Amino acid sequence: MKLASLKHGRDGRLVIVSRDLSRCVPVPAIAPTLQAALDDWSACAPRLAEVAVALEAGAVADARPFDPAACAAPLPRAYQWADGSAYVNHVELVRRARGADVPDSIWTDPLMYQGGSDAFLGPCDDIVLADDAPWGIDFEGEIAVVTDDVPMGVSEADAAGHVALVMLVNDVSLRGLIPGELAKGFGFFQSKPSSAFSPVAVTPDDLGDAWDGARLHGRLLSFINGVPFGMPDAGRDMTFGFPRLIAHAARTRPLGAGTIIGSGTVSNRQGTGHGSALADGGVGYSCLAEVRMIETIRDGQPATSFLRFGDRVRITMEDGAGASIFGAIDQRVARYDRA
Amino acid sequence: MKLASLKHGRDGRLVIVSRDLSRCVPVPAIAPTLQAALDDWSACAPRLAEVAVALEAGAVADARPFDPAACAAPLPRAYQWADGSAYVNHVELVRRARGADVPDSIWTDPLMYQGGSDAFLGPCDDIVLADDAPWGIDFEGEIAVVTDDVPMGVSEADAAGHVALVMLVNDVSLRGLIPGELAKGFGFFQSKPSSAFSPVAVTPDDLGDAWDGARLHGRLLSFINGVPFGMPDAGRDMTFGFPRLIAHAARTRPLGAGTIIGSGTVSNRQGTGHGSALADGGVGYSCLAEVRMIETIRDGQPATSFLRFGDRVRITMEDGAGASIFGAIDQRVARYDRA
Repeated sequence: MKLASLKHGRDGRLVIVSRDLSRCVPVPAIAPTLQAALDDWSACAPRLAEVAVALEAGAVADARPFDPAACAAPLPRAYQWADGSAYVNHVELVRRARGADVPDSIWTDPLMYQGGSDAFLGPCDDIVLADDAPWGIDFEGEIAVVTDDVPMGVSEADAAGHVALVMLVNDVSLRGLIPGELAKGFGFFQSKPSSAFSPVAVTPDDLGDAWDGARLHGRLLSFINGVPFGMPDAGRDMTFGFPRLIAHAARTRPLGAGTIIGSGTVSNRQGTGHGSALADGGVGYSCLAEVRMIETIRDGQPATSFLRFGDRVRITMEDGAGASIFGAIDQRVARYDRA
Repeated sequence: MKLASLKHGRDGRLVIVSRDLSRCVPVPAIAPTLQAALDDWSACAPRLAEVAVALEAGAVADARPFDPAACAAPLPRAYQWADGSAYVNHVELVRRARGADVPDSIWTDPLMYQGGSDAFLGPCDDIVLADDAPWGIDFEGEIAVVTDDVPMGVSEADAAGHVALVMLVNDVSLRGLIPGELAKGFGFFQSKPSSAFSPVAVTPDDLGDAWDGARLHGRLLSFINGVPFGMPDAGRDMTFGFPRLIAHAARTRPLGAGTIIGSGTVSNRQGTGHGSALADGGVGYSCLAEVRMIETIRDGQPATSFLRFGDRVRITMEDGAGASIFGAIDQRVARYDRA
């Protein structure tokens, strides 16, 4: 089934969405919010699934049109957002871009940072920031899963059973602030403003063959100002699958229901050193920093700019029939004017 | 007023606690949980304050004894836990201990990391971990504030008005895992398991002269297995006050109501290079790593062990009359046995 949170108060109003993303229905008798459903997931999920079946059959009386622009993030705020960096090609490229070391351990030990989870953006919300060029505003197209309660020390094998939902992420990154923040040794803090998520989150069973229990297979499509930018396959070159990322996060503590675990920026090696841009016949990338690094390797300097006020970024994934699975993240970068 | 969350479900049951910590009363008609109160703080706080006045006057019918052991953390789970490191003496000592650089910028630019906030420990909950000696289990005694909604880009001057509550923290740290985690460049992740908080959180107005709008003045008392370990003054040597830390956290994003901002480990320089232990006539420290570094500087190697299974740590702060302000964090380290 597919779930979304319509904008309403701080935590949204949970709706079940039809597979074709055309219709939805609130389920207040089961759970008012997605967090409430996840807090009692084993009881709620089967009941929500029954409504989803009825919605597909056209047997739900109060179904209504589904509007992605009316959506908050599936979890408008969450108790945990832990983002891995499982596509090592991305790690190699962005670290090379900032002249940082790339230890061999990145192939065997997942990278993961704790992100802010108190103020997520909806799929069509503006990315509002006080500065653009000096901050180096970039998007990062990622896959994320939402877990139920995960015990501390969970094994990778057991972790696979804790994936409740799958969705897309725009992990907005401020490349101009990252070097200074990481140099301080405490992580990305100021360089990772609010992340945005796809309109709907989807249960693994609804993804069919695209979900293999550890990875989501399919091209992650991204567009800058309407121009295709990337279409790497999320199922390729993901060195660590989600169960491994969950086990990594839970090594020294339990994960509360509704924990969001991110894949890191989707990136394919494409049989070359580090892949190539769409313009060069490759599958492109899922962030601007990577194509800027490819340009730097080739030409000595980057030609592509980071995002400026007014720019748009769109991230989506389609099924084999060309239908959007999660709906699109479609955001504009806007200047923050404090009242 | 003083607020606590009795263990109940995932988010606790909000109670108002008497100033002497002897009695409490639930306030379901105002807010069932502390998060719910913070979500509507400007409306709830005055109503809660009225009940607090009545409780002090003995005019509340359903008052009952207050038991810190029945408490969860004031926020049993939160949407954000951002921990600064504002006592630069601590930063210098622990970085020296692991041979890391101490750039001059630590005196002008706050250090802050994003912590996990989905599974906090109550004040008397065991610190349950799978390993002890190799992980180097340490406590960190800190002060924290809880904010209401803070706009992005808030000034330091305006940030002062967003402090809703003050409390104590035990920011449990795994010294054996920190060097490896920080070397990966993404922050502390696995080296910071669940943090614990004091039984009660206190509004700034209830702290009197101890709260100057930016810092909490008073000795942070810590004990290891009942033996006094530290009593540094939290109001001294805190290079960055809480309004500065809040403004730092909000530079590139808003902070949601219920955001917890930590001070970092309380540490006094004591007119010496880096202070000295209680046993040496100083005020001691608020974590084991600092005394181990002092021992190493003096003797060439540390003599004090990190915490082992069965050890206890107690953290509290008293007012001028010797009464506990926040109640005590009083925890035992225990071995995690997965069922």
